[in-house]
Amino acid sequence: MEKIAIIGTGLIGQGWAAVFAQAGFEVAMYDSSQKAVERALMAMEKRIADLAEFDLIKLSDAPQVLQRITVADSLEEALDDAIYIQENGPENVDIKKEITLELDAIAADDVPIGSSTSGISASRYCKDIAGRYRCLVVHPINPPHLHPAVEIVPTPWTDQSIVSKVNDVMIKCRRETIVLSEEIDGFVVNRLQGALLEEAFRLVGSGIVSAEDLDKAICDGLGLRWSIMGPMQTIHLNAPGGVTDYVARYGEMYRGFGIGPYDDVDWANIAKEKLGPELSQRTPIAEIPEAQIARDRKLMALLRHKKQAGVETSKQ
Amino acid sequence: MEKIAIIGTGLIGQGWAAVFAQAGFEVAMYDSSQKAVERALMAMEKRIADLAEFDLIKLSDAPQVLQRITVADSLEEALDDAIYIQENGPENVDIKKEITLELDAIAADDVPIGSSTSGISASRYCKDIAGRYRCLVVHPINPPHLHPAVEIVPTPWTDQSIVSKVNDVMIKCRRETIVLSEEIDGFVVNRLQGALLEEAFRLVGSGIVSAEDLDKAICDGLGLRWSIMGPMQTIHLNAPGGVTDYVARYGEMYRGFGIGPYDDVDWANIAKEKLGPELSQRTPIAEIPEAQIARDRKLMALLRHKKQAGVETSKQ
Repeated sequence: MEKIAIIGTGLIGQGWAAVFAQAGFEVAMYDSSQKAVERALMAMEKRIADLAEFDLIKLSDAPQVLQRITVADSLEEALDDAIYIQENGPENVDIKKEITLELDAIAADDVPIGSSTSGISASRYCKDIAGRYRCLVVHPINPPHLHPAVEIVPTPWTDQSIVSKVNDVMIKCRRETIVLSEEIDGFVVNRLQGALLEEAFRLVGSGIVSAEDLDKAICDGLGLRWSIMGPMQTIHLNAPGGVTDYVARYGEMYRGFGIGPYDDVDWANIAKEKLGPELSQRTPIAEIPEAQIARDRKLMALLRHKKQAGVETSKQ
Repeated sequence: MEKIAIIGTGLIGQGWAAVFAQAGFEVAMYDSSQKAVERALMAMEKRIADLAEFDLIKLSDAPQVLQRITVADSLEEALDDAIYIQENGPENVDIKKEITLELDAIAADDVPIGSSTSGISASRYCKDIAGRYRCLVVHPINPPHLHPAVEIVPTPWTDQSIVSKVNDVMIKCRRETIVLSEEIDGFVVNRLQGALLEEAFRLVGSGIVSAEDLDKAICDGLGLRWSIMGPMQTIHLNAPGGVTDYVARYGEMYRGFGIGPYDDVDWANIAKEKLGPELSQRTPIAEIPEAQIARDRKLMALLRHKKQAGVETSKQ
């Protein structure tokens, strides 16, 4: 049973503990505040019980999962024998630098140091640290144990072997890893959210639509599709000839909305050179009709679920 | 039993027929091509059977629902006694104008003429039509019977009574209506999709992430939340003080990503003046912790559903 160290035991650290322990890892939690770590351990019981209630872990496995999570009294104890470190400190460059220096001084040389930060690229705090080759961002979506997506963002100095190692750990934890080729502010998840929020603020701010109605556009519209299929695959299935055909049909229309401007982004060329080849490998053009039928069946299953679970937008 | 006329019986028209018939309306389908309308009627059987298979209509109700859908041999027959007209013609201003002129000449004065167009504001084709006061866009998300969201977009000349009438019909059909105060290119749904796609194309185009990994960011991340809760309510619940607090904490960060530029959109002011008051009415600040718990339970139920249904991103 391999061991993972969790440094910082707030809500994010707790979510990670649930993820790692579920996958069979031994989890050592450490926090500079003794109170925080005691509170965290208490909270874990509730989290694991919740997961069992929703059949996301077997009820009979719950006690074992909980037993895998322990508290370390010191940083040294937490890191001893750990194969991976997940750091969840405050969102502050100076504090991240201080914590990472300490971790780097103690941990064995080949142990990756992943940070949960959502806003700070790792290069901003690890540049002058000896072990910068093993520093990177491993960003979950809050709460981590309820969102499979995890972003892995290397710095210019991160070893490829470190990226692979982290990716392997995450895949063992049944995470869906988003591996970036290089750092970019906001990474992928928050850039996509930010782009949508920009337009949402514009629409609500200009009085064209209420926040409640705007929410319906996603929750009862685009979000239904997007919870079973990403936006790239969505448009690939929405034209007979796949994504390049979609851009030929609708690219002009979207550009005409006056969102942006993004004069440097050439949809048609990107569709032809990158999206088309990649998406057609996943779903060849000839298989699109079949994939559409499968998609609609998943949508119906999702609607049935929402109906049975009584999940309705306007009531939330 | 009130009657609704569906003009144009392609995929969108068929989806609408399922929506209206399920709600108890008598549905008359008309298409200038006799072949198209025969094909549509055949397809309806399969659609209704699918809905019954997924418990979205009762199996015992299926025959009655189908019986409510009939074919009209002429436009006059289709419109006779209809209380609402849903037009699903080709996406072409001239053709829309021609069809709408015809409909306006035949239909009783108080019958709204809604167009399913996703790209053409109704003012572009109805300006010179006598009955422009009853023309508007009623835009579904494809396929209409699998997405509750419907956009209602009035022209500068559309009567408020017409908007209310259409809204009432849609609510009877258990649609979630997004009512715009005025026309804007792309309406709300496609503007939001367009904003997200712009950033997605940029990220994939620059080689920062693959299309497959980008899809995970939505399908296993943001899309999970967004299928149970819109983006405005999402951020309202993601800060202790609600949406204004969220913008105070993270607004700067999002603006720093360099998405846009949207120099004319003042997040802080919009949050304070519009979003805060509206969202706090739905979920008062004091009830946010409780709403977070409810949200996480819905997320867990959704994950259970996806697990049971075998819906996993990378396999699609």
